[in-house]
Amino acid sequence: MPILANDPSRRSWIDVSKDSDFPIQNIPFGVFLTRDDVITIGTRIGNKAIDLGALHQLGYFKDIPLTDDIFLQDTLNDFISDGKKTWRLVRNRIAEIFDKDNPDLRDNQEHRKIVLFDLNEIEMQLPVQIGDYTDFYSSKEHATNVGTMFRDPNNALLPNWLHIPVGYHGRSSSIIPSGIPVHRPMGQTLPAGKETPEFGPSKLVDFELEMAFITTDANHLGEPIPIEEAEDYIFGMVLLNDWSARDIQKWEYVPLGPFLAKNFASSISPWIVTLDALEPYRTAGPKQEPDPLPYLQYEGNKSFDINLEVDLTPDGGKPQTITKSNFKYMYWTMAQQLAHHTVNGCNVNSGDMMGSGTISGPTPETYGSMLELTWKGEKPIALNDGTERKFIQDGDTVTLRGYCDNGVTRIGFGKVSTKLLPTFNKEKKK
Amino acid sequence: MPILANDPSRRSWIDVSKDSDFPIQNIPFGVFLTRDDVITIGTRIGNKAIDLGALHQLGYFKDIPLTDDIFLQDTLNDFISDGKKTWRLVRNRIAEIFDKDNPDLRDNQEHRKIVLFDLNEIEMQLPVQIGDYTDFYSSKEHATNVGTMFRDPNNALLPNWLHIPVGYHGRSSSIIPSGIPVHRPMGQTLPAGKETPEFGPSKLVDFELEMAFITTDANHLGEPIPIEEAEDYIFGMVLLNDWSARDIQKWEYVPLGPFLAKNFASSISPWIVTLDALEPYRTAGPKQEPDPLPYLQYEGNKSFDINLEVDLTPDGGKPQTITKSNFKYMYWTMAQQLAHHTVNGCNVNSGDMMGSGTISGPTPETYGSMLELTWKGEKPIALNDGTERKFIQDGDTVTLRGYCDNGVTRIGFGKVSTKLLPTFNKEKKK
Repeated sequence: MPILANDPSRRSWIDVSKDSDFPIQNIPFGVFLTRDDVITIGTRIGNKAIDLGALHQLGYFKDIPLTDDIFLQDTLNDFISDGKKTWRLVRNRIAEIFDKDNPDLRDNQEHRKIVLFDLNEIEMQLPVQIGDYTDFYSSKEHATNVGTMFRDPNNALLPNWLHIPVGYHGRSSSIIPSGIPVHRPMGQTLPAGKETPEFGPSKLVDFELEMAFITTDANHLGEPIPIEEAEDYIFGMVLLNDWSARDIQKWEYVPLGPFLAKNFASSISPWIVTLDALEPYRTAGPKQEPDPLPYLQYEGNKSFDINLEVDLTPDGGKPQTITKSNFKYMYWTMAQQLAHHTVNGCNVNSGDMMGSGTISGPTPETYGSMLELTWKGEKPIALNDGTERKFIQDGDTVTLRGYCDNGVTRIGFGKVSTKLLPTFNKEKKK
Repeated sequence: MPILANDPSRRSWIDVSKDSDFPIQNIPFGVFLTRDDVITIGTRIGNKAIDLGALHQLGYFKDIPLTDDIFLQDTLNDFISDGKKTWRLVRNRIAEIFDKDNPDLRDNQEHRKIVLFDLNEIEMQLPVQIGDYTDFYSSKEHATNVGTMFRDPNNALLPNWLHIPVGYHGRSSSIIPSGIPVHRPMGQTLPAGKETPEFGPSKLVDFELEMAFITTDANHLGEPIPIEEAEDYIFGMVLLNDWSARDIQKWEYVPLGPFLAKNFASSISPWIVTLDALEPYRTAGPKQEPDPLPYLQYEGNKSFDINLEVDLTPDGGKPQTITKSNFKYMYWTMAQQLAHHTVNGCNVNSGDMMGSGTISGPTPETYGSMLELTWKGEKPIALNDGTERKFIQDGDTVTLRGYCDNGVTRIGFGKVSTKLLPTFNKEKKK
């Protein structure tokens, strides 16, 4: 089935500015609370949010096999379970409805009032109920930087790294959408030169520039997904800021991996951009050497050219871009990650989320964390307000942005923006 | 509110044999499919399963504030969200209804037909939708054994172990109830003396003798749970067999912890025994030295005396007990685990599950895994059928059992029993 929604020549009767992340070719999916306090599934064109629940009730999807309440839900999980064919039919239909030459909704003022919202009338929610969250570690530059700093510069990559898309399980409950602030976590750390730990606020709170993909029901327990089928089970992608407390991490992570250093919060952008919408931006990933084992080998372009930027905004100050990277730097592809994750029979459900790991490029300006940008704090970043940063300070807002642009169409993810608050204080709250 | 349900002198009008895990003092909670293909929440006395959904519809819980459909659900999550006071009211009422001197249900044959099931008429389900699964590593003997085998016998415990209830995130999707067989996983391993990995079936599949607790909604993101409140948020406990592939684990786990070596399956017993029911079996845990940090310090007995046994049954053969251990050997208590888990603000929801980690006691006959029982395979276990085992073979069934017995009342968990099948074969299945 052709992806008609991707036609680059199509224009919408909704105004879309040239630098918008949300032209009619994007058609992402999200969940929002409306001005009438109703939760609905929606999409976005330009600066208008579109209530798909209302649109469906008004009969605009009548030829597509959808249950009546598929969009009247507080998560996308059921819609994602409907599978790739349905996602494509729905995106194609939305493209038709909002095409500048289609008068059906364009000229129906009554329906437009019901279906369209200004962005300030809605509140974006977490788009899916995330059953399981896995985080990979798939940027070779990031893994090399970390290995160089903390282990051995001459053997920075561990022996398994070039053979396995290394990953671990994260915490689903603390994944939050853009806009929800995060408290600086308390925890155990081992001060330099000491033998016993102390307890207190983390001193080294960091962001991690990541992207994540959301899956549909992929397999039954026990049945691996072959790599050539893996992309069929990927619904779409979001931006992910995997908040990290480096000092807690250092003390706790041997031998079972990061735990409290990561699970206090992970922030995602609220609009899921479908893999279909990203088709025009496919590109080759880095050459993999040595060859991976057969179950991880693939043909064709399975990476995506997605520009990524991170802004740091001091409390009351102005945003400053502190890194520019690209998703295409990832060594392991999403298809490899999903094939690896299921090769032992692990089952993957609708709404599961898998993070890329910190995305660092080949040069220092493209690194994806303060840890790397300031090289453990040895090279602080100078901010325009005259202050400097080794790690994230209370009151700072970290904003990740991402977009594809092939000179014809720009498709973006919007942003995930999160303010770091001081450590939680029960007394103060009362 | 007193826990009337625990009265050791009470007897039921349902027959309960002396060695039953389910006297009227237990009153565990589970979910089952009935002979009429209906899913309901239930409890168990002796060898009778009791349909709580039907009992509620018949008016037996009329003075307790419960929504009409609280037991007519396919998971216990909503009931668990109702909180400790409600759990206690319901257990106390069930104890009254089934008291041998209470004629209400006992003498109502019509109601009895609706409410009571023989065990062969029902099929036990997973009792909760597990949002997040965390596995701790809280047996000092287990951690010492593993450290001795794989690192340094003189420094077997890592420096953080005595300060932190070390834990990591596991996979929720592959948690299954007793009775569901598990396929031997495929995966990457590094053969001895080789520098590049190979792909194939795991050769070292192991069980892990664990218990796990199920939580209720405990806190909002950002707000720690003080240790003195932690037990209020624990609904109950189950037996957990945390299946492990030792060869996959060895190759993949540095630096982010176990992943595919564990997430192919974790099996639990289907009846959740409440913390209330376990009250009479409280005991002190091992002395903790050095003192833990203040947020992990507690008063009173926060461990439980629970006898644990593991049987191995060869295909077509007879069960043989291969280890006997006890939950009281655990170094870190559940209260400490939950306080630690949330001290950074990580939020815990109804239905989350937290495993103890492998429970090994002080002597070789009390070790909780084949890895330890056979000391990496160096000392195979002789089975009564003349064969021996270093690890688990295809066709073997592993059964974990657990019970408390203070000489007055015996309260048990039943069992979690799982057969290991050969590696999944797509062609064979067709």
